[in-house]
Amino acid sequence: MSPALRDGLRVWMTQLQRPSLLKSLAGETQTRPPVWFMRQAGRYLPEYRALRATAPDFIAFCLDPEKAAEATLQPMRRLPFSASIVFADILLIPRALGQEVWFETGEGPRLGPIPSVEDLTAHIDQAPIALAAVGETLKRVRAALEPDRALIGFAGAPWTVLTYMLEGGSSDRSQARSLAYSEPDRIDALIDVLVQATAKYLIMQVEAGAQALQLFESWAEGLAEPLFERLVIGPHKKLIGLLRDAGVTVPVIGFPRGAGALVEDYAAAVPVQGVALDTQVPLAVGRRIQGLGRAIQGTLDPLLLRAGGPALDRRVDELLEAWGQGPYIFNLGHGILPDTPIDHVERVLARVTGAV
Amino acid sequence: MSPALRDGLRVWMTQLQRPSLLKSLAGETQTRPPVWFMRQAGRYLPEYRALRATAPDFIAFCLDPEKAAEATLQPMRRLPFSASIVFADILLIPRALGQEVWFETGEGPRLGPIPSVEDLTAHIDQAPIALAAVGETLKRVRAALEPDRALIGFAGAPWTVLTYMLEGGSSDRSQARSLAYSEPDRIDALIDVLVQATAKYLIMQVEAGAQALQLFESWAEGLAEPLFERLVIGPHKKLIGLLRDAGVTVPVIGFPRGAGALVEDYAAAVPVQGVALDTQVPLAVGRRIQGLGRAIQGTLDPLLLRAGGPALDRRVDELLEAWGQGPYIFNLGHGILPDTPIDHVERVLARVTGAV
Repeated sequence: MSPALRDGLRVWMTQLQRPSLLKSLAGETQTRPPVWFMRQAGRYLPEYRALRATAPDFIAFCLDPEKAAEATLQPMRRLPFSASIVFADILLIPRALGQEVWFETGEGPRLGPIPSVEDLTAHIDQAPIALAAVGETLKRVRAALEPDRALIGFAGAPWTVLTYMLEGGSSDRSQARSLAYSEPDRIDALIDVLVQATAKYLIMQVEAGAQALQLFESWAEGLAEPLFERLVIGPHKKLIGLLRDAGVTVPVIGFPRGAGALVEDYAAAVPVQGVALDTQVPLAVGRRIQGLGRAIQGTLDPLLLRAGGPALDRRVDELLEAWGQGPYIFNLGHGILPDTPIDHVERVLARVTGAV
Repeated sequence: MSPALRDGLRVWMTQLQRPSLLKSLAGETQTRPPVWFMRQAGRYLPEYRALRATAPDFIAFCLDPEKAAEATLQPMRRLPFSASIVFADILLIPRALGQEVWFETGEGPRLGPIPSVEDLTAHIDQAPIALAAVGETLKRVRAALEPDRALIGFAGAPWTVLTYMLEGGSSDRSQARSLAYSEPDRIDALIDVLVQATAKYLIMQVEAGAQALQLFESWAEGLAEPLFERLVIGPHKKLIGLLRDAGVTVPVIGFPRGAGALVEDYAAAVPVQGVALDTQVPLAVGRRIQGLGRAIQGTLDPLLLRAGGPALDRRVDELLEAWGQGPYIFNLGHGILPDTPIDHVERVLARVTGAV
């Protein structure tokens, strides 16, 4: 075989194996969009529940590369997801910055008192080292995963992580929003620490094999426009700037959950390649965001996935029809619910991938 | 005085005393917009707390015209609000339809099991009679209130009231949303009962003196587009149609709280005169809704009102500047918080009315 032919074949093979998730994030419209589900590695899978039972402490589970890689891969073995997202938790960052974090069974996260800005700042450079286990998980998953299936890294966005750090994990975020008004300098300084630490953490994830990144702003809900600009749009822009300055070229998906009508401002202002849309975003808004040159991801209601039936089929078809005309990644608008029947998931995946 | 001159004077006096709230709802742009606050009769006022202490049972308090009228009028005596809203509760309707409703101190509402569609339907005609006390409150307030200050009647919108009826008052509405998917016929029938009962209740309020009506859809939050169309837009249209069929001509303000980007669909589809906007609605969206021929109302963050300071002044000026160019009613985006300092309220009202 001539060197030229060999090179040509290599390019062709690479293109053939290029994950569909990355094609959508590069702005390509595909006949069949890629599909993955938030919390696809999770309690709706019996094999996940069995694995989780072997590690009572949730943080230790996240930081055990063998178990975390296994959890990440479980849904990929059973179901035709186009992409995999590393099993981890958004509260690993405050832990790496020196704040105590633990999980009460059945009650969710609990956090100790928030350290001072100075104490947190002193931990920034250490954070990626403290989270090296997540990098090891990514390496193991990337080695095991087929080349045409993408591996996604992620982090909680600064404001969302800060709400947990300020409130200890148990409230409606109104305390954190109040502090944003009453102690603006302190809150902005804390956000800035998180921007820096999260950038370093995500750079480490890309070095370990993440091919795309998702930024989970799970608590954009209820932020008035001036706060949204200050606490979400500004920090996301700065964080992505730090990634690009460090030479990171992988695409970024921003997920401003509960941003309401502000999601369009987000899509216009933040240089992400994809915008994940929560359950409430209307079809027309999704199309407008595609028109801004962003891929969109979402928005199936996990409650409808759990309920199943003809209404679920109709909604899947409606999303494929309305959003499949542009760069699209099929997903839920929120994490899959633990009591979702697996056959509902199978049915949706078959419909999206065209197997039925 | 000639009869013609007397008639002319009467028209002029009437116009002079026409409440500014009604001018905005008729589409007029005013140099100084009218202003009222959701929950303006409430716990941030010491005189309210004293009055409330005389009636331990909250439902009994709402249904005591003397006390409810006094609560309604308290903020009007102390503060320059342009409009008054009758003191009542959105859960009076399920109670009038035969479902048990009570309030646990410090914990909010509790409801007994939801009656069958048939049992609820049998109570529809009786509902306005069971709630005659609210009409009596309206009559007393209207008699005491200056003619240039409007009196607003209100009800909870069908979906919001139904979430309480289904969940007993203690959850995040995901159970009600799930039922909307899994038992669509039953949920649609329940919504229809509430549409009919609420229309009768609001007609009674207008007969008793309400000059405008607000429909509180407090739990539009989290509804995916197909559910929003089915459970919010459709029922609101039907309810307003019933009011108009009955000859009710007073303006209606719809408040789809948490509708996110769907608020524009709401404003375009539902024939309301005003759309109340929650804390998260961006300035640009408010202007577009004015462009649809609706007055808008909102959107000051109650957390910012409580925090006070220069950021509060700036935001008030920003709202007046951006939204005062069209028909506008200054208000909060959510109810005033019990621990709001009264001098913050005074300061905002002075700024809006131009007293400072």
